[in-house]
Amino acid sequence: MAQQHLDPTDPTAGPAPTGDALAGYLRAQATEFLRALRLHRESGTAAGGTDESVDAARALRRSVRRISGSLHTYRPLLDTDWSESLRPELAWLSGTLTMEHAYAARLERLLLALHRLSGAAVFPTQTSAAVGPLKTAQGNAGPPSPPTADRGNLTVGAAKAGALLERQLTLARTRAHSTALQALGSSRFHAVADKIAVLASEVPLTPTAATTNLHPLATAAEERLTDAIAALPLVTAGHPYNAEALIHGLSPDPAPHPQDAPWHQVRLLLRLHRYAREALHGENAPVDVRLLTAGQALDRHRDASEAAAAAASAARTPRIAPATAYALGVLHADQRHEVEAARFAFQQCWQKQVVST
Amino acid sequence: MAQQHLDPTDPTAGPAPTGDALAGYLRAQATEFLRALRLHRESGTAAGGTDESVDAARALRRSVRRISGSLHTYRPLLDTDWSESLRPELAWLSGTLTMEHAYAARLERLLLALHRLSGAAVFPTQTSAAVGPLKTAQGNAGPPSPPTADRGNLTVGAAKAGALLERQLTLARTRAHSTALQALGSSRFHAVADKIAVLASEVPLTPTAATTNLHPLATAAEERLTDAIAALPLVTAGHPYNAEALIHGLSPDPAPHPQDAPWHQVRLLLRLHRYAREALHGENAPVDVRLLTAGQALDRHRDASEAAAAAASAARTPRIAPATAYALGVLHADQRHEVEAARFAFQQCWQKQVVST
Repeated sequence: MAQQHLDPTDPTAGPAPTGDALAGYLRAQATEFLRALRLHRESGTAAGGTDESVDAARALRRSVRRISGSLHTYRPLLDTDWSESLRPELAWLSGTLTMEHAYAARLERLLLALHRLSGAAVFPTQTSAAVGPLKTAQGNAGPPSPPTADRGNLTVGAAKAGALLERQLTLARTRAHSTALQALGSSRFHAVADKIAVLASEVPLTPTAATTNLHPLATAAEERLTDAIAALPLVTAGHPYNAEALIHGLSPDPAPHPQDAPWHQVRLLLRLHRYAREALHGENAPVDVRLLTAGQALDRHRDASEAAAAAASAARTPRIAPATAYALGVLHADQRHEVEAARFAFQQCWQKQVVST
Repeated sequence: MAQQHLDPTDPTAGPAPTGDALAGYLRAQATEFLRALRLHRESGTAAGGTDESVDAARALRRSVRRISGSLHTYRPLLDTDWSESLRPELAWLSGTLTMEHAYAARLERLLLALHRLSGAAVFPTQTSAAVGPLKTAQGNAGPPSPPTADRGNLTVGAAKAGALLERQLTLARTRAHSTALQALGSSRFHAVADKIAVLASEVPLTPTAATTNLHPLATAAEERLTDAIAALPLVTAGHPYNAEALIHGLSPDPAPHPQDAPWHQVRLLLRLHRYAREALHGENAPVDVRLLTAGQALDRHRDASEAAAAAASAARTPRIAPATAYALGVLHADQRHEVEAARFAFQQCWQKQVVST
């Protein structure tokens, strides 16, 4: 019955998956982690990043998230001491590996928005450069030079705002890069990597796990998601131009957007639900397009929310010109508008899902 | 057939209205003008405005727009020399009478938005005070004091932005008030008022007007409207969160929103169409709710567009603090967001209209 609830049309539906399926999934993710780690080392982290090193870093983050999520959702089937000791280490690793990419993506998003707001053509070099890895692994690399070349058609304010964001986010990214490199060379990391290497061949299941049905735990993960979604203000979100996301946009509160938190939480729960489904179905996991679309809307929500915060934070830099501050204000509001648009997109996609399942 | 096109369900449909109906409509509007003018004088323009003087000013603008619109739409039925000499005078009068109200409404809109963006409760005293008449007719009245009292829960930036807008728009409003008072005392105005007084009893129709069907001219006005609407980017406008209105929000172009012009034009053509229908139907003119709703969306579009421009213009004030400029940037983007929302509202309302007629 739980399986029917999850995917009544699944053609691979057979005997309910048990701890064996979970073990298979964890082994596959651990193997993927080791492959990505080797690739990441071979692609050279020290001098000059390549597409391969970016891909490898993404694959590393991807497998860490899946292992971590499975340990959470299927906790009762796994050796407690082992999983309780591994989980915080995976969270640390995931957080460390994510930051560099997050700063790069945030800068790219903000510079693209500044260009859009200036009515300027988008410059493709900038786009790919901003998400690529840093040219140098050294700490205090200056801001990369190519983007500045294309500021001819920006206002002074937009150009200065762009330069300020570039300086601040490139510095943050450089630091995140150094931190990640340090982390990957640390004994703490080697301990995690060793544990994952063991996991690739031997999953520490509980004695009863092999005969325990995974479905109730997967269903519980799904219910945590649907409960959290039910608590979202979806009626408002489904009403275009409700102007909710910018309320408190000028609030004196230093953390003015608590309204975003439930959406961020749903984003995490949606991801856990997706990974839980993957463990159920193994290699044959059917892709649920609507689940992916909903996840993309929530990613966009998170990215826009953080980009808006970065613009607001840059505006608090001492001694900036009023024109710079004005451009950052427009940019902040633009990104909050994006937050609202992402909520609308999520609502549209989720309502469809509810109707058709 | 033209009548069917305009309103197939009109229960008052009988013989086609001719120049006589137009003459009746113009006499009624001229009478209304004289009534409003008397009221306006009685309510005292010199010291302390009242609700009556605001109502009277509105009624004056209302009748002037209708006379002016009818002279435009039904030009072939009216004495050419007379109407050609009156039309520019009506345009001057309409423009002069509109400005004070426009500045007051703009300030109210911007202050309400600042409060909304600050997450503060909206203060009702401010609301009614801002659209009410100035307390003094003297030129350089300072900004009124009540609003400042409620800035406790605004950030420094929002409060300063509010104070700056209040200063600038109150000054503009005070000047507009003086200009309007001067205009109403000028010999130029007395000449217009005399002509309208004559119009209240005697409409200078052409010899053939009494037997000329009004419908073809009304239909032509409607076609000018539908042609202009067909040229609007309604597909984009109907797609929520298209982010079109803020494109060029940071453009170096001093007039960055040529995209608004076609919508402003449709707003004027919609008004002309409404007045043309009123002339056809006389006192029994059926109210077309959708036409009113569409007109309200376009009013909102115009108001938000001008409020956004006022925020941008205030941000160019020399020596303002960065926090002030930031708040004005957020405010500008918020109002451009309103522009986009108004276009969406118009599109929704207009599409309904097309389907159901």
